[in-house]
Amino acid sequence: MMNSIETFDNPYPDRDYLIRHEVEEFTSVCPVTGHPDFAEMTLLYVPKATCIELKSFKLYLQGYRNEGIFYEAITNKILDDLVAACDPKWMNLETRWSTRGGIHSIIEVSHGEHPDE
Amino acid sequence: MMNSIETFDNPYPDRDYLIRHEVEEFTSVCPVTGHPDFAEMTLLYVPKATCIELKSFKLYLQGYRNEGIFYEAITNKILDDLVAACDPKWMNLETRWSTRGGIHSIIEVSHGEHPDE
Amino acid sequence: MMNSIETFDNPYPDRDYLIRHEVEEFTSVCPVTGHPDFAEMTLLYVPKATCIELKSFKLYLQGYRNEGIFYEAITNKILDDLVAACDPKWMNLETRWSTRGGIHSIIEVSHGEHPDE
Amino acid sequence: MMNSIETFDNPYPDRDYLIRHEVEEFTSVCPVTGHPDFAEMTLLYVPKATCIELKSFKLYLQGYRNEGIFYEAITNKILDDLVAACDPKWMNLETRWSTRGGIHSIIEVSHGEHPDE
Amino acid sequence: MMNSIETFDNPYPDRDYLIRHEVEEFTSVCPVTGHPDFAEMTLLYVPKATCIELKSFKLYLQGYRNEGIFYEAITNKILDDLVAACDPKWMNLETRWSTRGGIHSIIEVSHGEHPDE
Amino acid sequence: MMNSIETFDNPYPDRDYLIRHEVEEFTSVCPVTGHPDFAEMTLLYVPKATCIELKSFKLYLQGYRNEGIFYEAITNKILDDLVAACDPKWMNLETRWSTRGGIHSIIEVSHGEHPDE
Amino acid sequence: MMNSIETFDNPYPDRDYLIRHEVEEFTSVCPVTGHPDFAEMTLLYVPKATCIELKSFKLYLQGYRNEGIFYEAITNKILDDLVAACDPKWMNLETRWSTRGGIHSIIEVSHGEHPDE
Amino acid sequence: MMNSIETFDNPYPDRDYLIRHEVEEFTSVCPVTGHPDFAEMTLLYVPKATCIELKSFKLYLQGYRNEGIFYEAITNKILDDLVAACDPKWMNLETRWSTRGGIHSIIEVSHGEHPDE
Amino acid sequence: MMNSIETFDNPYPDRDYLIRHEVEEFTSVCPVTGHPDFAEMTLLYVPKATCIELKSFKLYLQGYRNEGIFYEAITNKILDDLVAACDPKWMNLETRWSTRGGIHSIIEVSHGEHPDE
Amino acid sequence: MMNSIETFDNPYPDRDYLIRHEVEEFTSVCPVTGHPDFAEMTLLYVPKATCIELKSFKLYLQGYRNEGIFYEAITNKILDDLVAACDPKWMNLETRWSTRGGIHSIIEVSHGEHPDE
Repeated sequence: MMNSIETFDNPYPDRDYLIRHEVEEFTSVCPVTGHPDFAEMTLLYVPKATCIELKSFKLYLQGYRNEGIFYEAITNKILDDLVAACDPKWMNLETRWSTRGGIHSIIEVSHGEHPDE
Repeated sequence: MMNSIETFDNPYPDRDYLIRHEVEEFTSVCPVTGHPDFAEMTLLYVPKATCIELKSFKLYLQGYRNEGIFYEAITNKILDDLVAACDPKWMNLETRWSTRGGIHSIIEVSHGEHPDE
Repeated sequence: MMNSIETFDNPYPDRDYLIRHEVEEFTSVCPVTGHPDFAEMTLLYVPKATCIELKSFKLYLQGYRNEGIFYEAITNKILDDLVAACDPKWMNLETRWSTRGGIHSIIEVSHGEHPDE
Repeated sequence: MMNSIETFDNPYPDRDYLIRHEVEEFTSVCPVTGHPDFAEMTLLYVPKATCIELKSFKLYLQGYRNEGIFYEAITNKILDDLVAACDPKWMNLETRWSTRGGIHSIIEVSHGEHPDE
Repeated sequence: MMNSIETFDNPYPDRDYLIRHEVEEFTSVCPVTGHPDFAEMTLLYVPKATCIELKSFKLYLQGYRNEGIFYEAITNKILDDLVAACDPKWMNLETRWSTRGGIHSIIEVSHGEHPDE
Repeated sequence: MMNSIETFDNPYPDRDYLIRHEVEEFTSVCPVTGHPDFAEMTLLYVPKATCIELKSFKLYLQGYRNEGIFYEAITNKILDDLVAACDPKWMNLETRWSTRGGIHSIIEVSHGEHPDE
Repeated sequence: MMNSIETFDNPYPDRDYLIRHEVEEFTSVCPVTGHPDFAEMTLLYVPKATCIELKSFKLYLQGYRNEGIFYEAITNKILDDLVAACDPKWMNLETRWSTRGGIHSIIEVSHGEHPDE
Repeated sequence: MMNSIETFDNPYPDRDYLIRHEVEEFTSVCPVTGHPDFAEMTLLYVPKATCIELKSFKLYLQGYRNEGIFYEAITNKILDDLVAACDPKWMNLETRWSTRGGIHSIIEVSHGEHPDE
Repeated sequence: MMNSIETFDNPYPDRDYLIRHEVEEFTSVCPVTGHPDFAEMTLLYVPKATCIELKSFKLYLQGYRNEGIFYEAITNKILDDLVAACDPKWMNLETRWSTRGGIHSIIEVSHGEHPDE
Repeated sequence: MMNSIETFDNPYPDRDYLIRHEVEEFTSVCPVTGHPDFAEMTLLYVPKATCIELKSFKLYLQGYRNEGIFYEAITNKILDDLVAACDPKWMNLETRWSTRGGIHSIIEVSHGEHPDE
């Protein structure tokens, strides 16, 4: 069972500002070959009432360690779970996957409108 | 005969998102000199109903290994074949070729309108 | 007690221009674990009547050395203190924190409108 | 006498696309001191009916090897000759010159309107 | 006495183009401590009728070697002197100063409107 | 159960030569905290009668994915298993582990004498 | 009071091997100016009967956070404390300090003889 | 049929000196999977009576384009063919292969004694 | 008049250890052209009874700011002055000078025998 | 006619020390194709009674601008001319040539014995 993503109250809710978390270590399993996949992620968001609590986010990500799931699906699912947890003004998630067969893949998904655009 | 580019159903068709594949290994043949050409490629697209299946794309690219074709022609042809295969909302392909005679060439082609622009 | 941030008269108040200070050494304490946190900061601003005096800013930052405070709170508080000290046309502060548990965090906050936008 | 710049038919004239040539080796002579100057160049263009043929462009550039000419003049002249040869939709040329007396100079010139802007 | 900045006629006055000079060696003196300051500079401009002559600019900059002057003041003054010398359509000067007390400062000033904006 | 490391006959047993494998993806579990550890490895050896077969080595390494084991122990154990599998003239293994608490650890172990020393 | 450096039994005491810890975060105080100093450290050793336990080493290093001590003295003292704690066959410690007044200092100390030399 | 490696007379046969050729583009075929392999090579040698002629060496290497052969075998075979062609005092060949399954392999072979050792 | 180089007592005179100072900012004057020269320096030494005091060394180096002196002479002279000041077991000084006319020069001088060699 | 390499008296003839000149700009002509070749060079030597005068060395190197000569021959010839000019204790010259046909060549020649070996 996946660990839940916890939040804490945004200490400056009246100001639009940007939070970025660079996840340097992520691994899941390829649903076709059963071999491990490795990725780095960049999460970028403008909080509304709450912010993502980092330790619970780390444990949530560890929950994918032995899950078989495709790049496109996993990236969209993590974004959905983060949005459900903290309801941000805007959120962007990029996943960058290890080279397989000479091809290196990157997936980037967004939710909401960036306040400055 | 060129391998066909296969696709799979976009798991999140309701969200516009970006897929990038960095192809680190590509080779074809110069139609004038008969010597090998080497390139790296970046494919970037926003899927509509289907996504590019990576293994068939790799085999499709291997089909150029002994073909004699110019930089500008090959880049446009690969884009056309990818567009025909998956009908994306927007697609961009950049090919970067090995230095020849002290000149390093890059070709960049696009199809459709980027949803955010 | 925190050292106060001093200012000096902007020598060219009639021209909008950009001042950037890269702070390479900053440390505070994690309020949860009590372990030290380390950060780099980029302060960027367009001065109005006064500019930030660097030595007092350095001493002000040293005042956080043994303070327990969260990333999001400290970044917003330093911006507020700088704005209170020099009333800039526009100001932006980015803090970049050391990797913890494989995650590297960056917080970016702004005040006012950039004159060119 | 300068070698003429030759062209070939654009294989995809119906699509606006970008061609970039990175020239890694260029040398001319300083008209004041008589000493050699060295430069790298980036040529970027959107072709209309014809594309620049690379071998003739290389020979054309070699024609400057013993010519005495200033940075600003040579950059504008090469752009003019390229435009005359292939009549592009848009073209940009940047020349980056070796450090002289602790100063490194870069000149950038353009012709026409970029189709995307 | 400061060396004067000389100019030469713009060889292509009908075309808006960009000239960039990267100054890799600059030194002045801190007016407070009397210790040397070191900087790199980037000058970027679109010439109107005349261009900056490099040798006189180098000598002009050497004139600050033993002058005590603040970062903000010197950057604005050099821009003013350059504008007075060559009356450009647009000019931008960035100075990047050596680290002092763990803080690295950058000042960026502009004159006029960039023709493309 | 750990996958066994397979070998193939050294095609040039009469010549001392060097084989290096850079393992870019490895993960195990910290026996104290239960959190994942990540590492890169460099294996370097001079083969005697047999060489390490790469696919079986990759599967062998995947066997540590959910094992709890210390850096020093795992590095020595992998070296022992490789030596038992292929009996090399000389072998060296370096493991480089992700930063934990601001400390990045590297372990290097060897077996036998390098033929050139 | 300084935290003591703990050790654990070397799991492979019969083999000479190399352990390296890169300490990315260290801070102490300059005994002359009272301002903070920042450093990175590389510890390299060949264990005998015991290995340095990382968490206690991290806490030990945090004990210098508010201590006023010179570069040369602190580097020698940390080496002495580590040698006293684990009695290694050979040990080397390098400390690299932040730039002060345009000078960046590095101190390197050793204990014992490297087994391979 | 493989192109033969040609040589030319060493212009300075009385002096021991070092020639290095960095081959940036090489491709062969994996004998197991039939997929292309890509490599970079460094050839280093001290010539005796003759030197390797570069154009024939390039054509010789192109002969492997559609050959199925293992890393260890191909590296030793190219060294043997180069030694047979030019009989050097000392020669070293390193091949560095593209990442496969998260593992990047390097093979290094030598012939003869380096004159300085 | 040149500032004198001061020393302090070596806190660990019984251990041979290495001190390195990277001087990032140095300037003198070319005795031929009168133009400024810029350099970086690396000082490396094993102290005997005393160590170089950094602030006096910085002031000593500032004394060359308006002196006209050749690269080879200045490097040897600084080494001599340092040796006279602190009588080290071994000392090495490298000066790296800014590019002039496309040539970048480095001078390296030593005094005494390195204790480990 | 080639410019002669001039020398000046070694200011510290009693000490063995190392002088290095990095030549960033060199061009000659390929004797086979007539196309330009470009190179970077590193000259390293221990002077005896005289040192190489840089300006005459630069002019000497410019003399190859329109000469057709092979990599191996030119490197040995420049070393011979430098040795004849200044009779060093030891001298080493490395030339690094631009990529041709995917191959980048480096030639390294020496004269005499390094005093430390």
